[in-house]
Amino acid sequence: MGINGVEGDKTLQSICYKRGSLRLLDQRKLPLETTYLDIKDTKDGWEAIKEMVVRGAPAIAIAAALSLAAEVSNLASFNGTSDDAATFLRKKLDYLVSSRPTAVNLSDAAVKLNEVIDKAAAEAKEVKSVFQAYIEATEAMLEDDVMSNKAIGSYGANFLQKHLTDNQKITILTHCNTGRALHAQGALERAYCTETRPFNQGSRLTAFELVHENIPATLIADSAAAALMNAGRVKSVIVGADRVTANGDTANKIGTYSLAVSAKHHGIPFYVAAPLTSIDLSLSTGQQIEIEERSPKELLHTRGGLGEQVAASGISVWNPAFDVTPANLISGIITDKGVITKNGADTFDIAEFVRKTSGDL
Amino acid sequence: MGINGVEGDKTLQSICYKRGSLRLLDQRKLPLETTYLDIKDTKDGWEAIKEMVVRGAPAIAIAAALSLAAEVSNLASFNGTSDDAATFLRKKLDYLVSSRPTAVNLSDAAVKLNEVIDKAAAEAKEVKSVFQAYIEATEAMLEDDVMSNKAIGSYGANFLQKHLTDNQKITILTHCNTGRALHAQGALERAYCTETRPFNQGSRLTAFELVHENIPATLIADSAAAALMNAGRVKSVIVGADRVTANGDTANKIGTYSLAVSAKHHGIPFYVAAPLTSIDLSLSTGQQIEIEERSPKELLHTRGGLGEQVAASGISVWNPAFDVTPANLISGIITDKGVITKNGADTFDIAEFVRKTSGDL
Repeated sequence: MGINGVEGDKTLQSICYKRGSLRLLDQRKLPLETTYLDIKDTKDGWEAIKEMVVRGAPAIAIAAALSLAAEVSNLASFNGTSDDAATFLRKKLDYLVSSRPTAVNLSDAAVKLNEVIDKAAAEAKEVKSVFQAYIEATEAMLEDDVMSNKAIGSYGANFLQKHLTDNQKITILTHCNTGRALHAQGALERAYCTETRPFNQGSRLTAFELVHENIPATLIADSAAAALMNAGRVKSVIVGADRVTANGDTANKIGTYSLAVSAKHHGIPFYVAAPLTSIDLSLSTGQQIEIEERSPKELLHTRGGLGEQVAASGISVWNPAFDVTPANLISGIITDKGVITKNGADTFDIAEFVRKTSGDL
Repeated sequence: MGINGVEGDKTLQSICYKRGSLRLLDQRKLPLETTYLDIKDTKDGWEAIKEMVVRGAPAIAIAAALSLAAEVSNLASFNGTSDDAATFLRKKLDYLVSSRPTAVNLSDAAVKLNEVIDKAAAEAKEVKSVFQAYIEATEAMLEDDVMSNKAIGSYGANFLQKHLTDNQKITILTHCNTGRALHAQGALERAYCTETRPFNQGSRLTAFELVHENIPATLIADSAAAALMNAGRVKSVIVGADRVTANGDTANKIGTYSLAVSAKHHGIPFYVAAPLTSIDLSLSTGQQIEIEERSPKELLHTRGGLGEQVAASGISVWNPAFDVTPANLISGIITDKGVITKNGADTFDIAEFVRKTSGDL
């Protein structure tokens, strides 16, 4: 889903921002209603993240940061020194991080913004300069994210066209809300998307986005993916990533691992599309990633647990939110700095890729 | 699900029959309501099958046959010869077959019942004898089915205990409404069942049955099955079959193939549980099985298409009802005459197994 207004008209914007004004697309209401919520301050921002109005790790970080930018832009007055302003901003960021403590992008963004705040407070005599530095830093984050998504889409489309198809258009299978990476360049002939049980991000959000952008798109049950591959109907599988570890193991929405196993069985390349910021070099393998288990209600009731009962009363449920796909099932990692491949080796050298491309950062 | 009243009290009966009276458990209402529908004639039977009141290939065949038995039992009078009676029955059977043309058990049952009808008409002078022969043949089918299910459960449990576990209890993963095969003998430590999207037979029916029979049971999203296997939580996968071809290829509920691919990847044995009547020696491979595609509504709305809209408007849908699992992914076929294995070879010799055991039929 497009993250702000910089992109073309046809992209639905999940974050609409101009200085002093932030509106978030209410993704809980999709696909039946397209409603934007006004986010006037950090309290609104905190609640929007907590209540799943905004989804996706990078979007959450940016929405949080911008909610504080909006609050600060609209402050009538501020009593205090520039150090007081810095303290004010830091406390607000701590509060925002508490809305989703496990989101690495959100806490990473807070660390970076705190550095900006500290530097501005040390250099500035005026409160206004501290606030101005903060606001500009959040706006730069938003722009970077837009550019990063475009870069992923562009690198991905070029790579797939070169490696898969003799310049034919590509049919892909996506899982969860990862459609946005490859819409660029008219490279898609058709995108298949899974329902992405149990929260149906695929049938609700990915499907909505694909229809909205006029991409020929077909929804399948998660369990039909292997049959789809066996029928020769997809050339490639592309998924997102919540976190990629140093060896390339990838945590993503439950069901990703199943698709990777099926892709391997059918000799179909399997790609992860994620910005470099989702790579966590501090973890050596995916075994170090803790998997969140979510409420049984998501399987027992419709609408992610909020709707009517479907399943038999009294049944136990195992509902992991994510699974880990080992690097040996992954053909490449499409990032905003290029595509990481194994170059004929058995393993990825991700640290080397990050080092080589860090000059571009 | 137990098919009639011959089984123990704890088994929920999907077909309640005594001469002149047929009631079918409305499986659309499960698990929230336990409602039986009175089936007075073939029209009621046809609609019950078409509308998914009754599910599962053998149960469909028997319900269809018994609906005609009920109609005939309650006929006030019949004007015509015994040949007319035979024609009447044959037409009604043709009509019943049209409720689910792809169900091999249903068309096979019609073929067998037509032989009974022809024989009775040739021998009998009286209309009543033709009807009587038909009714008795359907009642024998019902009894055979009950015995057959017991035999599958018994052969399966014995086989798995011998081959898998050093006499420990077994944890299995099932898909779709196939729980009934292995409940016997207290051999199960835990059964995992999939939701079985998009019609949720797993979360509604299998889960209901497992809870009803006090078997420790856990529901998972279809997409979580590979992660479950990778976590070492299941010793074996057991699925049903809509049709098994001469080489062992098996058509079953969509998602079965995906489980077979995952089981292979994880080195977990994968079994098909089905009566010999589901084996179709007239088809040499699964490629000859035509796959029914069902309504997009099943994915677009809740409750198998009857409930509220979930998915984005305008999205295309691919909704195959079944997939075909090739014999090379199948470890064994548990039948009512014993377990068919490859005996160290690469392929099953199913025709030989059928020939050897046909003396028992």
